[in-house]
Amino acid sequence: MARVGQPYLENIPLEEALRRYLEALEQRGALQPGEPERIPVNRARGRVTARPVFAAVSSPHYHAAAMDGVAVQAAATFGASETTPLRLRLGSEAVVVDTGDPLPQGFNAVIMIEDLHFPEEDTVEIIAPAVPWQHVRVVGEDFIETEMVLPAHQRITPYDIGGLLTAGVTEVVVFPKVRVALLPTGTEIVPPGTPLKPGDVIESNSRVLGGLVEEWGGEPVIAPVTVDDYELLKQRILEYLDRADLLAVIAGSSHGREDYTVPLFRELGEVFVHGVAIRPGKPVSLGVIRGKPVIGVPGYPVSAALAFELFARPVVYRKHGLPLPPEQYRKAVVSRKIVSPLGAEEFIRVRLGKVRDRLLVQPLPRGAGAVTSLVQADGILRVPRLSEGYPAGAEVEVRILRPEGIPRTTVVVGSHDMVLDIMANLMQEKHPGFRLISSHVGSMGGLTAVGRGEAHMAGIHLLDESTGEYNTPYVRRILGGKKAYLVNLSYRIQGILVQRGNPHGITKLADLTRPGLKFINRQRGSGTRLLLDYLLRQEGISPLEIEGYGREEYTHMAVAVAVASGSADAGLGIQAAASALNLDFIPVGEERYDLCIPADLWEEKEVTLVLDLLKDPDFRRLAERMRGYDFRDCGKIVGETE
Amino acid sequence: MARVGQPYLENIPLEEALRRYLEALEQRGALQPGEPERIPVNRARGRVTARPVFAAVSSPHYHAAAMDGVAVQAAATFGASETTPLRLRLGSEAVVVDTGDPLPQGFNAVIMIEDLHFPEEDTVEIIAPAVPWQHVRVVGEDFIETEMVLPAHQRITPYDIGGLLTAGVTEVVVFPKVRVALLPTGTEIVPPGTPLKPGDVIESNSRVLGGLVEEWGGEPVIAPVTVDDYELLKQRILEYLDRADLLAVIAGSSHGREDYTVPLFRELGEVFVHGVAIRPGKPVSLGVIRGKPVIGVPGYPVSAALAFELFARPVVYRKHGLPLPPEQYRKAVVSRKIVSPLGAEEFIRVRLGKVRDRLLVQPLPRGAGAVTSLVQADGILRVPRLSEGYPAGAEVEVRILRPEGIPRTTVVVGSHDMVLDIMANLMQEKHPGFRLISSHVGSMGGLTAVGRGEAHMAGIHLLDESTGEYNTPYVRRILGGKKAYLVNLSYRIQGILVQRGNPHGITKLADLTRPGLKFINRQRGSGTRLLLDYLLRQEGISPLEIEGYGREEYTHMAVAVAVASGSADAGLGIQAAASALNLDFIPVGEERYDLCIPADLWEEKEVTLVLDLLKDPDFRRLAERMRGYDFRDCGKIVGETE
Repeated sequence: MARVGQPYLENIPLEEALRRYLEALEQRGALQPGEPERIPVNRARGRVTARPVFAAVSSPHYHAAAMDGVAVQAAATFGASETTPLRLRLGSEAVVVDTGDPLPQGFNAVIMIEDLHFPEEDTVEIIAPAVPWQHVRVVGEDFIETEMVLPAHQRITPYDIGGLLTAGVTEVVVFPKVRVALLPTGTEIVPPGTPLKPGDVIESNSRVLGGLVEEWGGEPVIAPVTVDDYELLKQRILEYLDRADLLAVIAGSSHGREDYTVPLFRELGEVFVHGVAIRPGKPVSLGVIRGKPVIGVPGYPVSAALAFELFARPVVYRKHGLPLPPEQYRKAVVSRKIVSPLGAEEFIRVRLGKVRDRLLVQPLPRGAGAVTSLVQADGILRVPRLSEGYPAGAEVEVRILRPEGIPRTTVVVGSHDMVLDIMANLMQEKHPGFRLISSHVGSMGGLTAVGRGEAHMAGIHLLDESTGEYNTPYVRRILGGKKAYLVNLSYRIQGILVQRGNPHGITKLADLTRPGLKFINRQRGSGTRLLLDYLLRQEGISPLEIEGYGREEYTHMAVAVAVASGSADAGLGIQAAASALNLDFIPVGEERYDLCIPADLWEEKEVTLVLDLLKDPDFRRLAERMRGYDFRDCGKIVGETE
Repeated sequence: MARVGQPYLENIPLEEALRRYLEALEQRGALQPGEPERIPVNRARGRVTARPVFAAVSSPHYHAAAMDGVAVQAAATFGASETTPLRLRLGSEAVVVDTGDPLPQGFNAVIMIEDLHFPEEDTVEIIAPAVPWQHVRVVGEDFIETEMVLPAHQRITPYDIGGLLTAGVTEVVVFPKVRVALLPTGTEIVPPGTPLKPGDVIESNSRVLGGLVEEWGGEPVIAPVTVDDYELLKQRILEYLDRADLLAVIAGSSHGREDYTVPLFRELGEVFVHGVAIRPGKPVSLGVIRGKPVIGVPGYPVSAALAFELFARPVVYRKHGLPLPPEQYRKAVVSRKIVSPLGAEEFIRVRLGKVRDRLLVQPLPRGAGAVTSLVQADGILRVPRLSEGYPAGAEVEVRILRPEGIPRTTVVVGSHDMVLDIMANLMQEKHPGFRLISSHVGSMGGLTAVGRGEAHMAGIHLLDESTGEYNTPYVRRILGGKKAYLVNLSYRIQGILVQRGNPHGITKLADLTRPGLKFINRQRGSGTRLLLDYLLRQEGISPLEIEGYGREEYTHMAVAVAVASGSADAGLGIQAAASALNLDFIPVGEERYDLCIPADLWEEKEVTLVLDLLKDPDFRRLAERMRGYDFRDCGKIVGETE
């Protein structure tokens, strides 16, 4: 039976939690780098110097010719001029040198080959005197033996390796890589590749956190999954503490009946913080065992990543002897109101796309389990603890997560269609530096977004019930006087999705009214919903007769999943969704799916690349593999509004 | 005998050279990524997807409880309220679930533990009805089987690994890492660790370029050094072409008598570009052999790094199927005029430091052999081909080379002293995120820089000949009415540096006038020069009597090196420089070395950290190890001006 296993979590503000943790670790010497080690310079890239490094030889370590030509004694060249050229005997008075050659003993200047004549085999003629030390790289010109080449606490770059080798240094004393033990826990956790049964959760957190540790320059030590067993977990913690400098227990950090992390941390060491006012990631715990920092991170993937970055990253950098690198921020605009509860600092993962020179924030789903938000995020928007969010139009600072830069982005908003996935993939493949992102808010939502300047195009399939015409009347109404084009993407067959084998024997829309039959609907404003309502009215069926008419999903695939999983018996959607999940499909009509593009964006690269793509044979080949589509007008302008 | 071995280099503008090269490679299919390979997701961090990846399972793949509590049928809870609580039988009407548990068959909502009472062992009491699907993560809420998780041509992040594993994907098809063969050449090149004789050059370029390749995600394949032999080099090129996707020959790319790179490229394949209007790095050559890109990079380290970054980096990114990441720029101010020749695009490595909110550019030595400029550079300032440079005060864009950020910097300008190295090292060690950089332009140059607002402090030792007083009179004169403090760093013993064993038997300044004895002087304006001139006048010696009085060096160590290498017999300098190079030292006097700090910077962190450091026992311990110093007043204010 469920019970509260431990005192409830605290709710400590983030800065306070971090300060408390780092101070406690500092006092216990738990932030000190480990015992320095000596390694070959050739393997030192990315490592951190533990001591300053001094040059063992000067550079150059001999007086070197800086040009091809002849070495001379400057004093012996005085008086040479164009009118009174001077001849020097090769071998004794002048010596041929190439760039980099040592200056022969007794010589102190070089004359360039371009300024020389060789009238006889063993004679050179010069027409200008040499200044002492001209075209000579003198000993130590670059750096001098005993000079400091690198200070301590410096991350070694490829250039530094060049400096060290040139300074005659072949070994360097560095801090050890910080080893971070990652202990995934939970009886429900199964290794990747295991056939899944309901309740199983694929272990992925340790790989995500391990990858982050590597990016910070550390070394992950990943333990096998530990089931929820107090004694087993205790044993694991002790075993892996021996093998690492920092230890994180993944999941079990809250206060539920099988959350052993905090009791174990308390039994084996100390806990300084349990529960931080962040969202997601609240049930994080921070402590120390046997002089080593330990962290309990929540098990949901987004919470785990966030808590680990907030609390493990500063520790790893400190233990490497390095400052925390500054975060990169960009100004962006919140196009729609973002609401966030008071009392917790919220970290919202967002995508960023620029439309008409405004960089716009697109919040991703906020669930702690939304792995896609980790994958898709370009940045993180922080909402402070004492803020309730941002109004539409607010300018915010977004922390950038892609150090390699955010590609130029075609922003598509509107009704979901799987052809958009094909386009997104081809865009990235064919046009490096560009991408297409689509967010799915239904056809009406897409048109509204285009009207507000938040998207380059809307994907729409909107039937006008009075005229039977597709899309144009809606564009005219919603975009007002704004000129726009409608470019056809496809015609799609819509129909009723039912379980494989059609167990309820559904053949037409009227069957949806059968008692006990559970329908799953699309949201208001979606093209599919309009089509359904139109067809119902034509056939004189009242929505009230359909059980589940009020249960709304936002995508074709979500409807298909509801049917496939048995949580619904039927839904209206496109054939492609049925095919993807191996459902049966009863066609009820064809609809036109267009891209609505404002005329003033027509020449933008983000738009022209998409238009080109629609005519690309590779696109056609991939698109035509999908069932339930007709591409007869694909890429054609099928409507225009003023 | 030296001769021009090949037609002279071209001088193609950079953009034209790059365009010509990439177009030629494109036409020959030499930019295509290699054959994709299938690897485990766990090892895929940093690799690039060759194909889009689709989800093999939905996430969640079952309807999951999103809270600890009981699963119920929503319909069975209608009517429950605080006044009319409803009792459900545990096991049949309600089932205890923890977060993440699968929803039992037939149930469609979860009621949180916080809202439950357990009046009897097998009964639960609720006080509010459940809405269908409340606190349930439905199948596919995050993503749905068959949906695209990652597009093609995407560098895989740690987060992506989480997404892939959660999507039931355990293997992923990626482009192969681009293998880059690096062939160091030159008869004078010796491996690191070899005892050096004059003319030897330590091989370091291949390690620098190899490190860059790794940072771009590729794999370096480093060949042993090839001596300058046409047939041997040919063999090596063919051998390593087989093992790599891109090949770079290091050195031998110019038109000298032993520059075989271009003739070999022509014999084995094609050359598109030889000679680019860049500085340094002009004699670069770009070609293709057997369908693989080849590059001849110049042998000087700065040229090699620059040419390789300009031409190899775009090829490596293209062959990885990725766009070139955008470069990062920062605005900064050129405090002193920078002159650059017309006709070549110059790349000047610079350090950056902020003084009074102005980010200032400090150009580093521009020699193609200046390895220190590679090590120390924070950024690169480009001077366009048709520009002659920048006037003092110009605002420029500097390309940033330190992705981890530029630390807060104490800028010290003035006379060189080795104690500054100790301070620089300790600063970085004790204060992560801060550093101290010093540039050596002599005491007068330092004061002028402080006067112009280009430095936080100047290191000076300036003797006033009329009063015999140190520093204060000069500060008053040069800083005008500006208030400043003089903080003592040390007293230093100055003396005559002579070769070990004092072969010329020098005992006093007057000995410097001996015929045939070669002196090496410090530059005008330096404190050491002032001291010398003061002492000479006191003893009635004319500078004209000293041979080499006119030959100037800019640092104590450069003077010491000149003496140690025999290019001079004597010089004036500090004892520490003599000790470092094992020279003999004849003391002639003590001088006061102070730091001059403008009063308005006194409270700045960049200054207070230095003042604290001067009193730090670790600093004292290290400093007092150096011979020829006295720290009796170190850290004390010894002067003040208005």
